[in-house]
Amino acid sequence: MNERIAVLPGDGIGHEVVPATLRVLDAVVDFEYDHVEAGDAVAERTGAPLPEETLEAVSTADATLFGATGETSADVILPLREAVDSFVNIRPARTHPGVDAVQPDTDIVILRENTEGVYAGIEDRLSEDVSTLTRLVTQSASRRLGEFACEYVEANDHDGFTIAHKNNVMRVTDGLFVDTIEEVATEHGVDVDDAYMDAMATHLAMDPSQYDVIVCPNLAGDVLSDLAAGLVGGLGLLPSANVGSDRGIFEPVHGCAPDIAGEGVANPAATMFSAAMLLEFLDYDSEADAVRSAVESTLEDGPRTPDLGGSATTDDVADAVIDRLP
Amino acid sequence: MNERIAVLPGDGIGHEVVPATLRVLDAVVDFEYDHVEAGDAVAERTGAPLPEETLEAVSTADATLFGATGETSADVILPLREAVDSFVNIRPARTHPGVDAVQPDTDIVILRENTEGVYAGIEDRLSEDVSTLTRLVTQSASRRLGEFACEYVEANDHDGFTIAHKNNVMRVTDGLFVDTIEEVATEHGVDVDDAYMDAMATHLAMDPSQYDVIVCPNLAGDVLSDLAAGLVGGLGLLPSANVGSDRGIFEPVHGCAPDIAGEGVANPAATMFSAAMLLEFLDYDSEADAVRSAVESTLEDGPRTPDLGGSATTDDVADAVIDRLP
Ligand SMILES: CC(C)[C@H](C(=O)O)[C@@H](O)C(=O)O
Ligand SMILES: CC(C)[C@H](C(=O)O)[C@@H](O)C(=O)O
Repeated sequence: MNERIAVLPGDGIGHEVVPATLRVLDAVVDFEYDHVEAGDAVAERTGAPLPEETLEAVSTADATLFGATGETSADVILPLREAVDSFVNIRPARTHPGVDAVQPDTDIVILRENTEGVYAGIEDRLSEDVSTLTRLVTQSASRRLGEFACEYVEANDHDGFTIAHKNNVMRVTDGLFVDTIEEVATEHGVDVDDAYMDAMATHLAMDPSQYDVIVCPNLAGDVLSDLAAGLVGGLGLLPSANVGSDRGIFEPVHGCAPDIAGEGVANPAATMFSAAMLLEFLDYDSEADAVRSAVESTLEDGPRTPDLGGSATTDDVADAVIDRLP
Repeated sequence: MNERIAVLPGDGIGHEVVPATLRVLDAVVDFEYDHVEAGDAVAERTGAPLPEETLEAVSTADATLFGATGETSADVILPLREAVDSFVNIRPARTHPGVDAVQPDTDIVILRENTEGVYAGIEDRLSEDVSTLTRLVTQSASRRLGEFACEYVEANDHDGFTIAHKNNVMRVTDGLFVDTIEEVATEHGVDVDDAYMDAMATHLAMDPSQYDVIVCPNLAGDVLSDLAAGLVGGLGLLPSANVGSDRGIFEPVHGCAPDIAGEGVANPAATMFSAAMLLEFLDYDSEADAVRSAVESTLEDGPRTPDLGGSATTDDVADAVIDRLP
């Protein structure tokens, strides 16, 4: 039986990059698609950004291809990550031949804790003056992330990983995070070191080649991956995978880009790379490689969307990618 | 009567950049210095990194010139910031003619909330598995920062400021932060906009010229200012001012650099720029300008320390700066 993939374009350019990516997927694999909706437009129409059917579809699909949403993003993506029990967000950031980058030597993967930290979202307005948020760090989530990081490093032939954190200030919580993951790495015989997240921001900006795999708490991963996106030439190129034990949500790191939505010129590369991660997650390894190579080759000398200095449309890029598939 | 300045070199290169900076200060102004100690070396000797006399000296001095400390930094600088009731940390990041930078068009000032956020440091290990940190955001601290930002923008002829935050996730706490500061800006008739801190990291990396003054919570300021440091050519150039209503602590953004400590080749520019901020804080405006211009002119065509590709010593740079004073 074919895998069932929930397809959630969302808002804005989501409706351009997701269909373009489905054309590429259709050229290499035979999935059953479940088209669902969420985001600003749905919220405007129905009052709520995340319909029950969508939550249900994503919760039961083998994987989800997600586009981008607008103002309502947090109301959409955070419950969906939770619904698929996604404990890690994989965010590779690498430069591509032919694409201008602030730091051309960037080739890192961020493994972001995806369930807790400040995203646990326990907040209170205690008085007129005082508000609090409870940041949650558990040993179990840290251990699970650490195990994943070790397996990831081993499976993908990396030398080890670096933990980014702020355990000099968040001594108990990031202390637990770092200690637990270091312990797991030692058990696995995986090389591990660590860096303060602020110092890492300096080092990433100046010389990202010193990092390979970075493991970090939720908000640190949010910021460091967007920083990495800036270094490699913009959000238009970065895929991500929200991975749970049985399911996953695959989405470009970029947003729904209302400024260019409707023009048909959005860069579909990030979504196509996300689809390659989806294929890999479902063990279609050769298809994943084929899609990734075709997108890379198109970035190198194929038609380019305006964000990369060209004048091609989203569909021109999809045509070129499909042409370059084996 | 002369102002009393607490002088706290700290560890490592702090003992090189602070004396070099005092030579420059001595050339323009007559302060009474109170030499005090804190940091790793003190902790090793006495068991505690921050002696009572040091806390007392900093708490009562008109201003403090701080170098850098090592592993014990958080135990030193956080209590000192609190001791002088420093509610804002001013972190300018600009490129200098003649100094290589990843992003040569960087000229921003980060106004970092300096008392609360995750730095409020209320943490608990609730069980073997669970740890929590209470992030604190108050209306009063946000208002005070907002007032300062408005005055800063007006006094220094900036067009307005941008609030960096994550109020889509930290809805109550960063919600309060953003709403309060926007309200203050409106009262003052100061232009204000806002950006998610993750998106800002992308934009800073790709095109920092779109930002001018950035106002943000404590940890966001920590990370964004270190990112900005990376963009302008490294931590060796960035000063900072921990400002309270009556006192201040002025310190380079860099650390104590154990790898080069003792060689006498540390770049003193960040500490000298910090001293210029100290002079300004104490209303020695023309002296502040003189020091700043002399350091800038030295960076442009004077002797350079190895971090900037030269082979000058810290003292060579101090000599050159003193030579260039009016
Ligand atoms: C939309 C927002 C809640 C989300 C996050 O902070 O995780 C986004 O920035 C991301 O990185 O996927
Ligand atoms: C040493 C550390 C506690 C400190 C901070 O996080 O504020 C440092 O990184 C800084 O930015 O001054």
